[in-house]
Amino acid sequence: MDKAGIKQLIARLGGTKTGLYQKDFLLTWNQSDSDLRAVLLTAEILEEMWRANIRTRFFNGGLGVSNFRDKSTRTRFSFASACSLLGLSCMDFDESKSQVAHGETVRETANMISFLTEVIGIGDDMFIGEGHEYMLETSQSIEQGHKDGILPQRPAVINLQCDRDHPTQSMADLLHLQKTFGGEGGLKGKKIAMTWAYSPSYGKPLSVPQGIITLMTRFGMNVVLAHPEGYDLQPETLQIAARHAEQSGGSFKKVSSMEEAFAGADIVYPKSWAPFSVMEKRTRLLRAGEGKQVAELEKEGLALNASHQGWECTEEMMKATRDGKALYMHCLPADITDVNCKAGEVAKTVFDRYRTPTYKEAEHKLYCIAAMMILTRFEKPARNLDAILGSAVPRKVA
Amino acid sequence: MDKAGIKQLIARLGGTKTGLYQKDFLLTWNQSDSDLRAVLLTAEILEEMWRANIRTRFFNGGLGVSNFRDKSTRTRFSFASACSLLGLSCMDFDESKSQVAHGETVRETANMISFLTEVIGIGDDMFIGEGHEYMLETSQSIEQGHKDGILPQRPAVINLQCDRDHPTQSMADLLHLQKTFGGEGGLKGKKIAMTWAYSPSYGKPLSVPQGIITLMTRFGMNVVLAHPEGYDLQPETLQIAARHAEQSGGSFKKVSSMEEAFAGADIVYPKSWAPFSVMEKRTRLLRAGEGKQVAELEKEGLALNASHQGWECTEEMMKATRDGKALYMHCLPADITDVNCKAGEVAKTVFDRYRTPTYKEAEHKLYCIAAMMILTRFEKPARNLDAILGSAVPRKVA
Amino acid sequence: MDKAGIKQLIARLGGTKTGLYQKDFLLTWNQSDSDLRAVLLTAEILEEMWRANIRTRFFNGGLGVSNFRDKSTRTRFSFASACSLLGLSCMDFDESKSQVAHGETVRETANMISFLTEVIGIGDDMFIGEGHEYMLETSQSIEQGHKDGILPQRPAVINLQCDRDHPTQSMADLLHLQKTFGGEGGLKGKKIAMTWAYSPSYGKPLSVPQGIITLMTRFGMNVVLAHPEGYDLQPETLQIAARHAEQSGGSFKKVSSMEEAFAGADIVYPKSWAPFSVMEKRTRLLRAGEGKQVAELEKEGLALNASHQGWECTEEMMKATRDGKALYMHCLPADITDVNCKAGEVAKTVFDRYRTPTYKEAEHKLYCIAAMMILTRFEKPARNLDAILGSAVPRKVA
Repeated sequence: MDKAGIKQLIARLGGTKTGLYQKDFLLTWNQSDSDLRAVLLTAEILEEMWRANIRTRFFNGGLGVSNFRDKSTRTRFSFASACSLLGLSCMDFDESKSQVAHGETVRETANMISFLTEVIGIGDDMFIGEGHEYMLETSQSIEQGHKDGILPQRPAVINLQCDRDHPTQSMADLLHLQKTFGGEGGLKGKKIAMTWAYSPSYGKPLSVPQGIITLMTRFGMNVVLAHPEGYDLQPETLQIAARHAEQSGGSFKKVSSMEEAFAGADIVYPKSWAPFSVMEKRTRLLRAGEGKQVAELEKEGLALNASHQGWECTEEMMKATRDGKALYMHCLPADITDVNCKAGEVAKTVFDRYRTPTYKEAEHKLYCIAAMMILTRFEKPARNLDAILGSAVPRKVA
Repeated sequence: MDKAGIKQLIARLGGTKTGLYQKDFLLTWNQSDSDLRAVLLTAEILEEMWRANIRTRFFNGGLGVSNFRDKSTRTRFSFASACSLLGLSCMDFDESKSQVAHGETVRETANMISFLTEVIGIGDDMFIGEGHEYMLETSQSIEQGHKDGILPQRPAVINLQCDRDHPTQSMADLLHLQKTFGGEGGLKGKKIAMTWAYSPSYGKPLSVPQGIITLMTRFGMNVVLAHPEGYDLQPETLQIAARHAEQSGGSFKKVSSMEEAFAGADIVYPKSWAPFSVMEKRTRLLRAGEGKQVAELEKEGLALNASHQGWECTEEMMKATRDGKALYMHCLPADITDVNCKAGEVAKTVFDRYRTPTYKEAEHKLYCIAAMMILTRFEKPARNLDAILGSAVPRKVA
Repeated sequence: MDKAGIKQLIARLGGTKTGLYQKDFLLTWNQSDSDLRAVLLTAEILEEMWRANIRTRFFNGGLGVSNFRDKSTRTRFSFASACSLLGLSCMDFDESKSQVAHGETVRETANMISFLTEVIGIGDDMFIGEGHEYMLETSQSIEQGHKDGILPQRPAVINLQCDRDHPTQSMADLLHLQKTFGGEGGLKGKKIAMTWAYSPSYGKPLSVPQGIITLMTRFGMNVVLAHPEGYDLQPETLQIAARHAEQSGGSFKKVSSMEEAFAGADIVYPKSWAPFSVMEKRTRLLRAGEGKQVAELEKEGLALNASHQGWECTEEMMKATRDGKALYMHCLPADITDVNCKAGEVAKTVFDRYRTPTYKEAEHKLYCIAAMMILTRFEKPARNLDAILGSAVPRKVA
């Protein structure tokens, strides 16, 4: 895209009202449609500026802090990349002990790491009923710290995956869909199948399917959810999806087989996850230090998984989609049959055909994170972007 | 503070002579009063510049290297923040093996990590009689490397905590005191109680109390040290404190109870530490690989601690201080009774009342570290700061 | 060196054709002489610019990713330093699992970490027959990703040590030799002894001796290789060395004792390594998960080593070199007798005499890495350097 094109996107952003300034980005369903549009627009602008060799340095110093309470490589990389893109120093904070003493310690830690901090990205999806709460507690602590004059700026908390939602993933997915189907308007009436798929591993988080059904129902899409019995999502997210569908003129439906979900679908998103009730039980056992029973539960979970190996996105399954050509999506990494496992979520030939699109889908994530940083930390982002575009400092010397 | 105010501070710094250029910052008692004043002034200027959204980039490239020989989160964060503030890339160096072969290996390592390095921050407080020596050895190695033409610049070594002193902490504390009591002049004649306090954990370093008694006696304060029998500090630091008190017109006194120390105090600093003699014994045992005996020693230490649970900064204790309103200080994290332990250093209500001040106290540390970096690496820091203030590049785009 | 001197070096670089742009740097023997000259010249220019306090920021954002599949401290530091020098954010990627699923996973990972990435530095010297292949696979993956429009730029892969070559080391060594002997011309006819030396440790990689014999034979040097029976290098590298010697008018010879190799040598490079056949066997055993047999093999290896303690670079040995004053070289850290081991590769007095030169030798490495980054990522590096020199932004404020 040339500069004139980028300028137009910035102008559109200028006309998009958002309430994100001085706030967090935790759950998409707590943000307005307009907020979401602003994130996607900003992400697109940043992506085009990078490609146009324009430096997008919003900060000259200051920190972005990531706090991953589970292992993470890709999201950690995305967050660090977004920091680099905007000129923040990225620091990884490993506060494995802060869980112990809620209240005092979370507050203290949150303040101690925030003296120069603009953004705190948190990934905490291990325990049901905890990830989101931890982010809220962090947010309240720094809000208070800012009011008390301890923190000169009020860092934004960005949810890099919690027990309820995975907004940086779902927003990247949404941007991918818009780019594929001709913008927001192109999504109306499109059928997307969010389905469980078999995986030989266990305990994959629910945040992705929950994020997808709650977000895609907002844009007039027909969202169909399918999974084997017992693999329910968090009930609240189903209610949100239903409400969103009603408001947007889309639809939300649960079916009980991959076949049914795929029938006539424009988009398929086959992905494994663990049952909500099992994750809840697991959380209780882990909290109680019942290591043996956790292992037992895992064994049962894998056995249950194994009874659903038919849930695979095969060529046969794909034939049932619209013209046999539905867009395949995945948050990556996928369990690909005969590639990294014997039997998995998707057939090799299907994945291969969609590899390039899924990689592009993944690329959007870092720009969505950067967009959230900008919108939460700058009052007039369109004006700033315009100035940056105008001066056009090259990212690489030329 | 507005620009004019910052300009005045810079002018004052310009009139403050320091001998820190091309040197290290290891022990406060080896620095002149004027050096210390320059550090505090520079820290204050940097803090105000950050708040005024002015970029303080002294470096366009180059490294700050941190080397923590014990676990550290907060100081590590402070050091990295200071690097970011001044434009250095921060690298953490984990040379756990360099202890093995003193002499050749320390020298080699010190040079190998210093080709582009401006500052090396070292935290090494585990072993009595070693931390400071290690820093000296590192310093001599790079001094020689610079003379031999290996290192184009002579990195400064900054003590981020050793067995003797914790200068970045005590200087942050001093800045906090000056800001609370109206500058250096306001400290004259104030009584500060540096007292041991009960903690259910073991082996906390002595560097904080040692740093406090040696530093605060320099500014005409009346410093009272109190601890249970057997919890002595390193004898040398008592002598230094006594000498400083005599020179400054303050006083230094040892008493044997928290009550006595608190009586009429303007400031209280109740904090746990391990006895010097026990730490010495522990060092010998660890060196000898006597793991069992170390565990034994720890058990004894905890038992000894437990016999002094009365040493807690309670509301009752606070009543004895001047008007019952002494300033409570702590280097954080504190062991707070009923918050992160059953019985600890301080009562919840006392800590709560002083939470915001102690958080601000902590904030100064990163600026003190940055100030030490500037004063050791730049010959005319006031001139540089003036130029930076003049051009006023915004830290965040506006 | 003053600016005029640097300008001359840049002019020389301008007249040096290279084919490195948009390529990788994996094995020196796959690069043209002219490519190698360009790397050395660029390294020298960067080194002089640093010393002249000139900021060499080629990038305003973007990532350099390091991926060390073995432990590494010094090379990791060099890579990160080079990133800092050029303005890239350095990220360390620990993809220990990518070995598992060659093909899909290496490709995916390579793309996922490259959205903003300009350079990927890989260190992988553990397994015979794998390190170089892994780099190739990474290179092909990102080349494809770039063609498919996933990656806006095509990151360069830089070999930070593999099973075959250690180009950043050997190039740093070559620069050291040129600086010591008066440029490339001064190397013609010089005798360099690359010899095995005794070490009490086991399994040191073969990449250094292989890198030295293949590279130094290209510049008219007389390269002599010596090692005890059974300590053969990878046969291919001997053939390359012989071919290079023939082409350059130098020579390549294998002898069977350190004495013979040292006789009349201008340069000696005594360094321990493991036998190629043992490393091959070790690779097979590790792959098969035969931990016990690996330990057994190691024991045998150490016993074999121990029978060759006479291979030490003593004062006596040094006397046999040209005028008793050959240049001693080492990639560091060396096993120094009576310093970090009882008996090792080199006598303390010999090492001491050459300490400063070997440290300078080591310093060149980071500049060689930075040079490889520039030449692979910029089409007209001389023009860029000229502009950078012209504007002369100070690295430290003055």
